[in-house]
Amino acid sequence: MIESFRAEQRVLYGDTDCMGVAYYANYLKWFEIGRTELFRTVGSTYRSWERRGCFLPVYEAYCRYHKPARYDDIIRIETTFSLGGKLRLRFTYRLFHKGNGTLLAEGYTVHVCTDKDGRVIKPPPDLRKLLKQMEEMSSQKHSKD
Amino acid sequence: MIESFRAEQRVLYGDTDCMGVAYYANYLKWFEIGRTELFRTVGSTYRSWERRGCFLPVYEAYCRYHKPARYDDIIRIETTFSLGGKLRLRFTYRLFHKGNGTLLAEGYTVHVCTDKDGRVIKPPPDLRKLLKQMEEMSSQKHSKD
Amino acid sequence: MIESFRAEQRVLYGDTDCMGVAYYANYLKWFEIGRTELFRTVGSTYRSWERRGCFLPVYEAYCRYHKPARYDDIIRIETTFSLGGKLRLRFTYRLFHKGNGTLLAEGYTVHVCTDKDGRVIKPPPDLRKLLKQMEEMSSQKHSKD
Amino acid sequence: MIESFRAEQRVLYGDTDCMGVAYYANYLKWFEIGRTELFRTVGSTYRSWERRGCFLPVYEAYCRYHKPARYDDIIRIETTFSLGGKLRLRFTYRLFHKGNGTLLAEGYTVHVCTDKDGRVIKPPPDLRKLLKQMEEMSSQKHSKD
Repeated sequence: MIESFRAEQRVLYGDTDCMGVAYYANYLKWFEIGRTELFRTVGSTYRSWERRGCFLPVYEAYCRYHKPARYDDIIRIETTFSLGGKLRLRFTYRLFHKGNGTLLAEGYTVHVCTDKDGRVIKPPPDLRKLLKQMEEMSSQKHSKD
Repeated sequence: MIESFRAEQRVLYGDTDCMGVAYYANYLKWFEIGRTELFRTVGSTYRSWERRGCFLPVYEAYCRYHKPARYDDIIRIETTFSLGGKLRLRFTYRLFHKGNGTLLAEGYTVHVCTDKDGRVIKPPPDLRKLLKQMEEMSSQKHSKD
Repeated sequence: MIESFRAEQRVLYGDTDCMGVAYYANYLKWFEIGRTELFRTVGSTYRSWERRGCFLPVYEAYCRYHKPARYDDIIRIETTFSLGGKLRLRFTYRLFHKGNGTLLAEGYTVHVCTDKDGRVIKPPPDLRKLLKQMEEMSSQKHSKD
Repeated sequence: MIESFRAEQRVLYGDTDCMGVAYYANYLKWFEIGRTELFRTVGSTYRSWERRGCFLPVYEAYCRYHKPARYDDIIRIETTFSLGGKLRLRFTYRLFHKGNGTLLAEGYTVHVCTDKDGRVIKPPPDLRKLLKQMEEMSSQKHSKD
């Protein structure tokens, strides 16, 4: 089950920059892959929530870059989730070089839940239930690490 | 007036790749800047047409890469427009290195006009009028070149 | 074996635009995935050629957009290769919606082979051998389609 | 002079996502524009430093998203600089909607100085002088705000 927290993505030529490494903004795209796949881990999709009028726009994003990712490397993305206070949702990410296990970057994103008009709302009960499940899986994972 | 056909954009670090030059997909973003600014040349904006329910999705795109654009170069984008047959709109682009005038790339995009549900429609009369105006300006420009 | 021609990529939120579909420049990124994976099909990687001083910059790119790709769709990328005349390498791509098999887009890219200083060169014998192999696999695939 | 701290960039279609607003990773590209232009403010360019073997890779990046930027909006980017301890360089950014002055986002990036092989170095004396100058301009600006 812990495996399922992990998503992978290969670094494209188009992800790199003229320093020869992945451009710093692209790590936020890999964060997106991480949280999207975390939804699938609990049998749901973020897309399905949008269709029901629940959006999770990003309120804060942070990344610390440890080692550069390079063209054609496979990035392993590990994602955990926790419910913050004040209607905040928090995903944390760790990106590893799949080949040698090096920690490349770590960071987090904080989200709020809004309706289709952008008004901040309390996540509806069934989304809350799902988020709780994601949180529990995350803490189990953590305790096993 | 001819000046107004020209848009400029500086190549970002994030636009380059590990070959040390601008990544090939980004030229299509510069094409977008070119056609967006062409709308402004005739006193309109593409955004305003979308708000009125007229969309111009891309149907074809082509680019030929002559010389690489590099980080921090300023790209000068020259755009012309012509109405094709069968409800097609055609923009052609030439990208130059502003500093030394070198032709970097040239290409075109073909668009159709759709309503908000994606159905192909005939451009409404006032859009057609505007497009005619863009076409005339383009041909004047061409004959003066 | 034919399977191995196929690469897959999920459409990210960041790949879409405010029309609600994948932005047209991103298809060229998916083309890149296609040709990169085609190299792997014959037991090589494009990266290893760059390390040996062989670069394959894009000279031409074309895409025709049939149906829009949407957020969270899985794109199936089918790629074939042929050696053109005049030292040109040609990759053709067809992108499908994995879920329902719809053809979303098709296109091609034409490449030249250069050394690390950007001078056009004839592909070295062992690269030529590999390209021949890619061409043969492509034509086999084609004849079976 | 304070004006020169300000860079502007129009939101492209390709910068937006299917939520109808600018995708969160693109704000980091706008941060890049901000710091690049800050170098120009003091009569230099980041590119020239790279040519002399001085690189400033990003070590940390943070962004807080206040209000969404939308297609065709012009973003005004205000950037300040300060020398942190431990060989760290810190740029802070505020992004505004040019039309109505709304604060859209704010954030920072922390950089280290490296040589071309990626080893962290102390910025050379003439770069240090320039950075001091950028820092002084930033603090003047701040005190006038």
